Amino acid sequence: MVFQADDYIPNISYDSVIFGFSGEKLKILILEYHNTGTFALPGGFIRKDEDLDRAVKRGLSERTGIDQIYLEQFHTFGALHRSNPAVMRRIFEGQGIVMKDHWIFDRFISVGYYALINYDTVSPKPDALSDSIGWYNFDSLPELMQDHNQIVEKALEHLRNHLDQKLLSFNLLPEFFTMKDLQQVYEAILGENQNRANFQRKMLGLGILERHEKLYSGGSHKAPFLYSFRKVKSDS
Amino acid sequence: MVFQADDYIPNISYDSVIFGFSGEKLKILILEYHNTGTFALPGGFIRKDEDLDRAVKRGLSERTGIDQIYLEQFHTFGALHRSNPAVMRRIFEGQGIVMKDHWIFDRFISVGYYALINYDTVSPKPDALSDSIGWYNFDSLPELMQDHNQIVEKALEHLRNHLDQKLLSFNLLPEFFTMKDLQQVYEAILGENQNRANFQRKMLGLGILERHEKLYSGGSHKAPFLYSFRKVKSDS
Repeated sequence: MVFQADDYIPNISYDSVIFGFSGEKLKILILEYHNTGTFALPGGFIRKDEDLDRAVKRGLSERTGIDQIYLEQFHTFGALHRSNPAVMRRIFEGQGIVMKDHWIFDRFISVGYYALINYDTVSPKPDALSDSIGWYNFDSLPELMQDHNQIVEKALEHLRNHLDQKLLSFNLLPEFFTMKDLQQVYEAILGENQNRANFQRKMLGLGILERHEKLYSGGSHKAPFLYSFRKVKSDS
Repeated sequence: MVFQADDYIPNISYDSVIFGFSGEKLKILILEYHNTGTFALPGGFIRKDEDLDRAVKRGLSERTGIDQIYLEQFHTFGALHRSNPAVMRRIFEGQGIVMKDHWIFDRFISVGYYALINYDTVSPKPDALSDSIGWYNFDSLPELMQDHNQIVEKALEHLRNHLDQKLLSFNLLPEFFTMKDLQQVYEAILGENQNRANFQRKMLGLGILERHEKLYSGGSHKAPFLYSFRKVKSDS
């Protein structure tokens, strides 16, 4: 894979933090570059002829095989020394490519995007640059290249601060779910246990849930109610 | 003023939305380019040797004379056709400069920053490129160049969604203020009247206000309480 200078905007990249959840721990999708021991967020560059948002979707699909997910921009990282040419060289050499000069060794300002998906619903595939791709628990991430660990922290901060508003955008829960399912989402993302009664009161107060007469059929004596997200009217 | 290609990162700019408030309407700081009738947000470019955040502070100071304010990044605008070379040409020609090719006519991805200040405390000065600089009411903004009107909308959306958290960061109110002063800030920014009792309850519920025994000395029979923001502990 060679990145032709004429095809891409120089000095701008994107990095994506793909959070995965499936009823238990919060995980993050990480690539490992060939023969380098270098771990990184899936990222890439913007073609001269494409929108930034479009570039991120295309790039993520090319690098991870993951498609059709809701991505949200959260912050742009522009510190002067965030890029590390030595790391980029090592990645290329891991591919057996030795280059003296390349626009990829320049300074990059990187636009951060994140997504939150149910990781049971996707099968990420590593691209040609990578040995492996996999889900890592947030609390035991490997050391990532450049400022990628900081990018993860900032993405998580954003996700935590906006979880109430974003719940509907992320296709994280099945159509019908229990209050306990929802509580597990919050506990995994906020990283702390929630008081059951307070949590239920808060969630109902948001006005985004619909309670159904149908009960969870798990055979429990006290079958819990099922909820779904209220349909949002398109004109509101 | 000539922008040397060697000094700046190509294809990346910033635009800043400076909201002003002083007890009444929400205003926005707008520049008018020489002899062109072109109105714009204060924006600029990033030097190859400076942090993005630093570039925005420097550039804003150079373009408006405004310094030492709290700026916050809110969104990066990367649509393919957001830049309009014809407008940039007109701005240069307004300066009596005719150029065939220049990196400034390329496509730009722009990082948006905003600030909220008391406009009585600053004296903006137009830079060499501009005829004038001034505060415009949000509800009667002129048509701005490129996608700057959309940038303003997005900044306002961000400000409205984060006002509770950001109140302390913006030096908008004097040390001691009344609940009515605070309500005026919210009404100007949210663009709608607030119920006095509900507003007071909500504000006190945020836990960021300290009520003082000292009363407002305006001579009214029912002197209102004065409030200040609770000091935030540096270790929290």
